[in-house]
Amino acid sequence: MSVEKMPADKMSIEKALNDSAISVNRKLDELIKPVSGAEARVIEAMRYATMVGGKRIRPYLVLNSAAIFDVHGEYALRAAAAVEMLHCYSLVHDDLPAMDDSDLRRGQPTAHKKFDEATAILAGDGLLTMAFEVLSHRDTHPDGEVRADLCHALAVAGGANGMVGGQMIDLLAENQELDIGAITRLQRMKTGDIIAFSCEAGAILGHASREQRHALTAYAHKLGLAFQIVDDLLDAEGDAAETGKPTGADAAAGKATFVSILGLERARTQARLLGDQANEHLDIFGRKADPLRWMTEFVINRKS
Amino acid sequence: MSVEKMPADKMSIEKALNDSAISVNRKLDELIKPVSGAEARVIEAMRYATMVGGKRIRPYLVLNSAAIFDVHGEYALRAAAAVEMLHCYSLVHDDLPAMDDSDLRRGQPTAHKKFDEATAILAGDGLLTMAFEVLSHRDTHPDGEVRADLCHALAVAGGANGMVGGQMIDLLAENQELDIGAITRLQRMKTGDIIAFSCEAGAILGHASREQRHALTAYAHKLGLAFQIVDDLLDAEGDAAETGKPTGADAAAGKATFVSILGLERARTQARLLGDQANEHLDIFGRKADPLRWMTEFVINRKS
Repeated sequence: MSVEKMPADKMSIEKALNDSAISVNRKLDELIKPVSGAEARVIEAMRYATMVGGKRIRPYLVLNSAAIFDVHGEYALRAAAAVEMLHCYSLVHDDLPAMDDSDLRRGQPTAHKKFDEATAILAGDGLLTMAFEVLSHRDTHPDGEVRADLCHALAVAGGANGMVGGQMIDLLAENQELDIGAITRLQRMKTGDIIAFSCEAGAILGHASREQRHALTAYAHKLGLAFQIVDDLLDAEGDAAETGKPTGADAAAGKATFVSILGLERARTQARLLGDQANEHLDIFGRKADPLRWMTEFVINRKS
Repeated sequence: MSVEKMPADKMSIEKALNDSAISVNRKLDELIKPVSGAEARVIEAMRYATMVGGKRIRPYLVLNSAAIFDVHGEYALRAAAAVEMLHCYSLVHDDLPAMDDSDLRRGQPTAHKKFDEATAILAGDGLLTMAFEVLSHRDTHPDGEVRADLCHALAVAGGANGMVGGQMIDLLAENQELDIGAITRLQRMKTGDIIAFSCEAGAILGHASREQRHALTAYAHKLGLAFQIVDDLLDAEGDAAETGKPTGADAAAGKATFVSILGLERARTQARLLGDQANEHLDIFGRKADPLRWMTEFVINRKS
C-alpha cells in the first residue's frame, strides 16, 4: 500500500505518539532519580536534558516494534527510555560551543546554557552510560543473551562507525561538496543507525527471526532517510513559525543537503518513494505493523 | 602479611605490569581499527587517546583478578581493554577546556590540543561507547548473562552515581572545605568505582561466588583509596622531575586533599594501613592473588 493511498489516520498516529511519549517520559523520570548528594547537579542536568520534550519518535518505534512480537510492556518501555537517553546525550553534546554552539533547543536553553559547559559534558556522558545501565539491567529482560544483544546493537549504532562517526563527518562536511552518496552515508550514520536500532530493539526483545529483524531495520533505514529529506525540505521551504526554528539555516551554513543536491521536487518525490519502500518491508508482519505504517505517513507529511 | 613485611619483589610487579600493558596495548590497537571513511579522524583521535600510554593499572587488575579463576586469557584481555577505553575517555573529557583545561597529559598534547575540541568530545564519546561494544560482544564471553553483567557493572561504576558523579563533585569542590568523609566519598566515586570494577570484571568472567566477588571489590576500594592518598603525597612532596608533573598543584588550586586534611605523616600511615587492609581481603584466594598483592606494594611505594 503506497503512502499516498493510505487512509489518512492522523488522529491515530498523533494520539499513539502522544501516548507513547507520556509513558516514556514517566519511565525516564523514574529511571533518572534525583539524588541529594553533592553530585545532584549532574543528575539534574540529565533530567533537564531528557525532559525538555520532543516527539519521542525513537521510543515510539521501540514500543511498536516490540508490540509486533507481544513483548512485555515494561521491557519495551525500558528499552525505549534507553534509546531516548542516548538520543538526548547526543543532542546535549551536539549543542556544545565546540560543536554546533546552540543556545536553544525546542525553544528552551540548551543544557550548557541552563547549567554550564562542564556540567553539560558530564550530563551527556552520564546519559550515554545510563542507557547501557538500563539495557543491561535484569528488569529489561530475564534473558542475559537478550540484554547483551541490546547493549551490543546500541553500541554499534551509537559508536564511531555509527552516530559518533556521523557527527564527525557532519562537522568536517561544512562547506564541502558532498555528493548524494556521501550525504546518504552521513545521514545513515548520524541519525539512521539509532532509528534502525530503535526497531531492532523490539526484534531483539521479541526473539525475532533473522528475517524479521532484518525487515525491521530495513524499514527503519528507509524511514530515517525519508525523515532527513523531509527535514531538509522543511528547512528549505518551511514556515519558521511552524517548524519552530529559523529556516534556510542549512543553506546559510553552506551545508550540502538532500534539497541542495536533488532540488525541491526530486527531494519530495524521493521522500515519498522511501516511505513506500519502508512500508514494503513491513508486509511480512500484516496488520500488527500498522502503528509503524502510521509513523511512515507521519514522517512524510509532517509540517514541523 | 603486612605491606611492609612483604618481600620486595619489585622486579616481579614491574615486569608483570609491563607485560600486561604490552598485551592490552596490542588488544586496543586491534579493537580500535583505523578506517578509511570520512569519519577516520574521530577514530584516529580515539587511538591517540588510548595509545599515549600510562601504567595500565586497571587492565592489570582485570587480568590478574581473572587469573584467580583461570578465565580464558582472551576474555580477560578484552575486558581489560574495555576498562582502559573507559578510563581514557574520562581523561579526554577531563582535560577539555571546560573541565580541567589541560594541554598536556603524560608529556604529550591532550586530545583536544592534538586534534580539536569537537573531535576530542566525540573521541571520548566513541571510546565510552566502544567499551560497551567490546564487553557485550560474543568474543568476550560465550555466556550472555556474563556479558550483560559486565556491561551493567561498568555502567554503574562509570555513571552519575560513580565516576561521572565523582567528576561533578570534584568540579564543584574547588575552594570548598571538604571534610575527610566528603573527600573519601569523592575519590571513591571518581576513581575508586572503576578500580573496583576492574577487579569485579575478573570475578564476573570467572563466575565467582558472591563472597569472592565482594572480597575483590573490597580489596580494590582500599587499593584505590591508598592510590589516591599516595597521589596526594606525591603532589605535596614529590620531585617534579620524577612524577613528571608540576608538584604542589593541588595546594595552588586550593583543593582539599587527603594531605591537606590529614597532614603528611598521618596520610602516609593511612596509605600503609589501607594497603594492609586491601591485602587482608585477598587471604581467601591464597597464592593465586599474589599479583594483586604486588600491586598493593607498588601503589604504596611508587614514586611517580
